[in-house]
Amino acid sequence: MVTDWKSLATAKREAILQSIPPKWRIAKIPTAEEQKDVTGAYAQEFLSQKEIEITETDAVGIAEKVAAGQWSAVDVTEAFCHRASLAHQLLNCLHETFFDAALADAKALDAYYAEHKKTKGPLHGVPVSLKDQFHVKNVETTMGYVGWIGTFEGKKEDPRQGTYESELVRELRELGAVLYCKTSVPHTLMAGETVNNIIGYTWNPKDRFLCSGGSSGGEGALIGFRGSPLGLGTDIGGSIRIPAGFNGLFGIRPSAGRLPYEGMANSMDGQNSVLSVVGPLATTARSVKLMVQSLLSQSPWLYDPLVVEMPWRQEQEDDVWNTANSALGEFTFGVLKTDGVVNPQPPVARAVQMVVKAIEKAGHKVIPWESPDHHAGITTTLKTWTFDGGKDVHDAFALSGEPIAEQISMSYGNAPTDQKTASDIAANNVAQRQWKKKYLDAWNSTASATGTGNPIDAIICPLAPYPAARPKGYRWYAYTVWVNGLDYTSVVVPVTNADKNIDKYEPGYTPVSDHDKTAFEDYDAEIYDGAHVSVQLVGRRFQEEKMLALAEYVGQLLGK
Amino acid sequence: MVTDWKSLATAKREAILQSIPPKWRIAKIPTAEEQKDVTGAYAQEFLSQKEIEITETDAVGIAEKVAAGQWSAVDVTEAFCHRASLAHQLLNCLHETFFDAALADAKALDAYYAEHKKTKGPLHGVPVSLKDQFHVKNVETTMGYVGWIGTFEGKKEDPRQGTYESELVRELRELGAVLYCKTSVPHTLMAGETVNNIIGYTWNPKDRFLCSGGSSGGEGALIGFRGSPLGLGTDIGGSIRIPAGFNGLFGIRPSAGRLPYEGMANSMDGQNSVLSVVGPLATTARSVKLMVQSLLSQSPWLYDPLVVEMPWRQEQEDDVWNTANSALGEFTFGVLKTDGVVNPQPPVARAVQMVVKAIEKAGHKVIPWESPDHHAGITTTLKTWTFDGGKDVHDAFALSGEPIAEQISMSYGNAPTDQKTASDIAANNVAQRQWKKKYLDAWNSTASATGTGNPIDAIICPLAPYPAARPKGYRWYAYTVWVNGLDYTSVVVPVTNADKNIDKYEPGYTPVSDHDKTAFEDYDAEIYDGAHVSVQLVGRRFQEEKMLALAEYVGQLLGK
Repeated sequence: MVTDWKSLATAKREAILQSIPPKWRIAKIPTAEEQKDVTGAYAQEFLSQKEIEITETDAVGIAEKVAAGQWSAVDVTEAFCHRASLAHQLLNCLHETFFDAALADAKALDAYYAEHKKTKGPLHGVPVSLKDQFHVKNVETTMGYVGWIGTFEGKKEDPRQGTYESELVRELRELGAVLYCKTSVPHTLMAGETVNNIIGYTWNPKDRFLCSGGSSGGEGALIGFRGSPLGLGTDIGGSIRIPAGFNGLFGIRPSAGRLPYEGMANSMDGQNSVLSVVGPLATTARSVKLMVQSLLSQSPWLYDPLVVEMPWRQEQEDDVWNTANSALGEFTFGVLKTDGVVNPQPPVARAVQMVVKAIEKAGHKVIPWESPDHHAGITTTLKTWTFDGGKDVHDAFALSGEPIAEQISMSYGNAPTDQKTASDIAANNVAQRQWKKKYLDAWNSTASATGTGNPIDAIICPLAPYPAARPKGYRWYAYTVWVNGLDYTSVVVPVTNADKNIDKYEPGYTPVSDHDKTAFEDYDAEIYDGAHVSVQLVGRRFQEEKMLALAEYVGQLLGK
Repeated sequence: MVTDWKSLATAKREAILQSIPPKWRIAKIPTAEEQKDVTGAYAQEFLSQKEIEITETDAVGIAEKVAAGQWSAVDVTEAFCHRASLAHQLLNCLHETFFDAALADAKALDAYYAEHKKTKGPLHGVPVSLKDQFHVKNVETTMGYVGWIGTFEGKKEDPRQGTYESELVRELRELGAVLYCKTSVPHTLMAGETVNNIIGYTWNPKDRFLCSGGSSGGEGALIGFRGSPLGLGTDIGGSIRIPAGFNGLFGIRPSAGRLPYEGMANSMDGQNSVLSVVGPLATTARSVKLMVQSLLSQSPWLYDPLVVEMPWRQEQEDDVWNTANSALGEFTFGVLKTDGVVNPQPPVARAVQMVVKAIEKAGHKVIPWESPDHHAGITTTLKTWTFDGGKDVHDAFALSGEPIAEQISMSYGNAPTDQKTASDIAANNVAQRQWKKKYLDAWNSTASATGTGNPIDAIICPLAPYPAARPKGYRWYAYTVWVNGLDYTSVVVPVTNADKNIDKYEPGYTPVSDHDKTAFEDYDAEIYDGAHVSVQLVGRRFQEEKMLALAEYVGQLLGK
């Protein structure tokens, strides 16, 4: 029996909605015109005082309250299941819910705590949301593909279906985390917006005219709505940073090999020139750190062959705080205000300037950063996305015959093209390595410009030209992709919100390129008003400890 | 003007010989029949007492003597230039000599020492030989290709020719090392013997009927002859370990990303599924350690984008010695006696057994190691060598039209074949990762078999079925290649010498495969008599500190 993709998609969409307990359903979902911003006061209307308190506490705070016996894991879990249910109804951000399993796990954690008078691990009782690439037992993984419904990664009757768990999921359970939902992605994962034929389009909770970012867009929307305190996304071209930035969150893109990707679903699996990496998004920098530190405590290199044996290096974090808290110490940042092809829209330009000012005011130095061979490096990076001519993603679409979202066909067309050969790939790898070398040398060379004798500590830079994009408006990846090409560490720091009264292009602004013209014409101060605006702090490879501390420090300077 | 490859090769071969000062030339080179073993007493005949003392001191001892002002860098350098000259005449192990530059550098180091009363770095005055993949200013790099003569990696009129230096060369100079020669390789680097159309065939100094191994075969022969105390080779399938083992040396194959490969010539550059790695060979384990530790002191991750920020971890070395020196501590080793397809020839089987006995006698435990999916994993590893259908190496041969050695055509044929596509490569990468995961899990699972609650510390295993191979006899790579496929750390430990009186196949031995039959028929106790026999100790990924300490300890147990 052949089932058409529409029926499959509709059934799945309905099943997700039906998994939300009737008591938590919203009678009438307002339109964006009726309710642009569904965070804060709007969301609170549906929640008890206790639920509000719990869901508006960050992951570190939750872990502390549960560890102190003040909150039960069950109460915390239930509050987030409720708020996540609201989020999905308003934003289409969930692919899977498994609230009953979560409550059972929470109950077991409470029993453990009662018996042992201690927590199971540093994430004891903390709800953690997962991008829909993680395999969790008894839960489906579709990654937004209709053709993956009822299969294991598109394979029918695979024994792993419903039983297999990704390595990171195993570690989260060891750490005491409570897993309760999986979040939406753009099919293929290769877009800065989140759209697929199952859930439709994931909206930005702060501004429902705008996207939630992508590809970890469900995470961004859910955590932005406070339907989760802490979640895990992945990033091959900006997919953690874009949703973090668009939703006012902290998020880290670690270097490949720091955190375990083992056993996760993915696109173009086995393309190993530029690797997708896994990393957390959260409402505070310290919560992002909690996750990274907790995972490293599990020695993931013993379970994931691609993880490097590199435990959490406390001294690298301490170094940052020693400098931050010392009258003598001084950081130097490079700043990349524009990539020269698409200038940031006014709110983003203002956010970068705010960060520069705050850092300078605190006694540190900011120098311009000249990114060597910026666009050539990005070109070699983007090439890796289509080494296979799109075979992998088009095969996945062909399973159901579903149509391809425009946000995807912009990169992958509507049918596969020729594959690259081994020699093509090798040549691109060499070009990438040479670019990385040039970048290292340029970074080292700043030692003579900082005045401290040391090279810059990090680069301040936009993560996109937009505060958040309008549907089909996310078209310029250059601000995030260079970081993936270099495999550098980047942490997103929320800065401010768009303000229609001040964020305007200068009168007579002349776009510097066709792409810039598109961004310029796309900007609408009214629509963007109130949207989150963020920047990224980029450090060298494997600088997770340092960059997380710097992000937290810069967040403090900004009053976050 | 077209020059035929023979004239070019002959001119280069002559130029190498002519670069040896007349005073150091040997009047008549004996045949192998006349002088099978040219080490020890034979070599000493040509040297002064002081030269013998210097050249038979290990790198650590040399560094100490020079640092103490007992030996000058010039005296040390001259002694090794002399002995290396003898080595080349007897063994064909050099591609380049630059003795004058070396002596000038040594003189400058002596002046530095006289002025500052301290050394320039931990390798001050230590001669270091380099495989002919390193670029050194004013010195050619041919990698054994006739078509590379007078070019930069085959490219004519490239500005880097004669001026460029590899990153590791820069670091060696910073460390105070004296560079004086580059050593022979099989053209393409992809063989366990060393043969090319320039220098011909590199022989084993201990047994000139046998090969010196490959592809760092010039290093193996040179250091085995004591024409160098410490050298650097590379390894993508055994190319450090085979020459180390065949010449009675210690040598390490570190994990990819530990030591800097930046700016070196290579084959199939940009193939990034299984990477060639650089690592030292030396006469003692502590000298190998000296090099690794010295290089890491240079923060190579700031200069090579593929190097991981992982300084020397002294505590990992200390842990080994604490256990070794404690009555309570205990190591557990796995032992892989045969891969089931080609059984080790009798001297190798005996060496493995000697190591097991020595370890057990010292109070440690040895358990059998079942290598999961051993040959399937090796198959995916070997596939990476020909992803490009041999295009890279055949292009290099085509530059001059030179013929391809049989040891190479056995893997690459005589003409290129079809290239693998991006999808083929990705699928192979996934298969490799799954194998690595299976291996990790199997290693972890030994925790329940060791009796200590900890998994095994290392695997003892042959590095080849042969003590050393006869010309065209190196045909079985499985004992080394699995380590490259897994990216594990392996250190070669010399164990004993073949003995015609005891190393015999059991009467009525029945080969277990056609390959085993070849190895069986190849064995000749008379020819092999006296040859070095070694094993490798294999640790997990990035276990350089631990494995070097274990190798030194096992060497001590064996009386090395």
